[in-house]
Amino acid sequence: MKFCSQCGQPVTVRVPDDDNRPRHVCDACGTIHYRNPKIVVGCVPEWQGKILLCRRAIEPRRGFWTTPAGFLENGESLQLGAARESLEEAMATVEIGSLLAVVSVLYAEQVHVFFRARLTEPSFAPGSESLEVKLVEERDIPWPDIAFASGDFALKRYLSDRALGLEGQHYMEFERKVARGPQHPGV
Amino acid sequence: MKFCSQCGQPVTVRVPDDDNRPRHVCDACGTIHYRNPKIVVGCVPEWQGKILLCRRAIEPRRGFWTTPAGFLENGESLQLGAARESLEEAMATVEIGSLLAVVSVLYAEQVHVFFRARLTEPSFAPGSESLEVKLVEERDIPWPDIAFASGDFALKRYLSDRALGLEGQHYMEFERKVARGPQHPGV
Repeated sequence: MKFCSQCGQPVTVRVPDDDNRPRHVCDACGTIHYRNPKIVVGCVPEWQGKILLCRRAIEPRRGFWTTPAGFLENGESLQLGAARESLEEAMATVEIGSLLAVVSVLYAEQVHVFFRARLTEPSFAPGSESLEVKLVEERDIPWPDIAFASGDFALKRYLSDRALGLEGQHYMEFERKVARGPQHPGV
Repeated sequence: MKFCSQCGQPVTVRVPDDDNRPRHVCDACGTIHYRNPKIVVGCVPEWQGKILLCRRAIEPRRGFWTTPAGFLENGESLQLGAARESLEEAMATVEIGSLLAVVSVLYAEQVHVFFRARLTEPSFAPGSESLEVKLVEERDIPWPDIAFASGDFALKRYLSDRALGLEGQHYMEFERKVARGPQHPGV
């Protein structure tokens, strides 16, 4: 952020009065521009024991696999956002279930929230952000090619809970980027 | 948002290519400025059955009562943010427990996340954003003077769960502002 979105003048970074953190401040109009974590919502959709995965058509991590997830929009609940992402990325209609995982991705200034989900019918196809969508058995999940550490965490907790007949909530923090292998050779 | 925070030129609101929602777009430098819900984190701190409440020293809802809560900052987990708000608003050290409630405050473009919590010692005092802080028995909670509908929801679910020996997760959406009485006469 270099300019004030209210008046167009340059902003400076300093600690405002009555605050204890540096903020982007406009000295021309007085606006303080707070920057806060964004929410990514996703789900682990299941159909008859299989998990729905999408192969990413866009960066970051094009060519890698992920559960449907994306930024929460204004005006929608977490559950609605997670269902919308499944529809957009996998053209799949899901029923959102219980909360699965909350992952603070601190270096990216994001909170990733994952829910359990069920496909309402075995119907899916790649949306514009996916190269490929498929239902996979647990043993066939391409772990080295899972796109993001948060999704890897959510998927693993989903499966370990499922094996025990549980629906727990799981928390994780990533302070820095987790190395997850090179660009996929297929793209 | 009227000006581009990257280059200072005026922005327009339109649906970008490959998108389906209006965004603030800078036609000068091409930046798309996404606006997403902000996260408010709070907790219901308990000490020997009593609940810690703060009387707000700032707007909105100055003079009304609330559990400690505020905007999540970059670089902190939800739990850390909730604990920080207790320290700032009530000068109270808390241990954050299980997830209590997630409230989508759609009209305000916020998600309010509440946790159960315990004071580590019966020590508290008003921070700069509070007029008064106190521990109250359930029967003494000033329900008509609770500041926000989300906090009212979280408190009630906390108490009803506690009465049953449960620790559930509760979800709510507010599409529009809930009328919660006039300005408090005491301020």
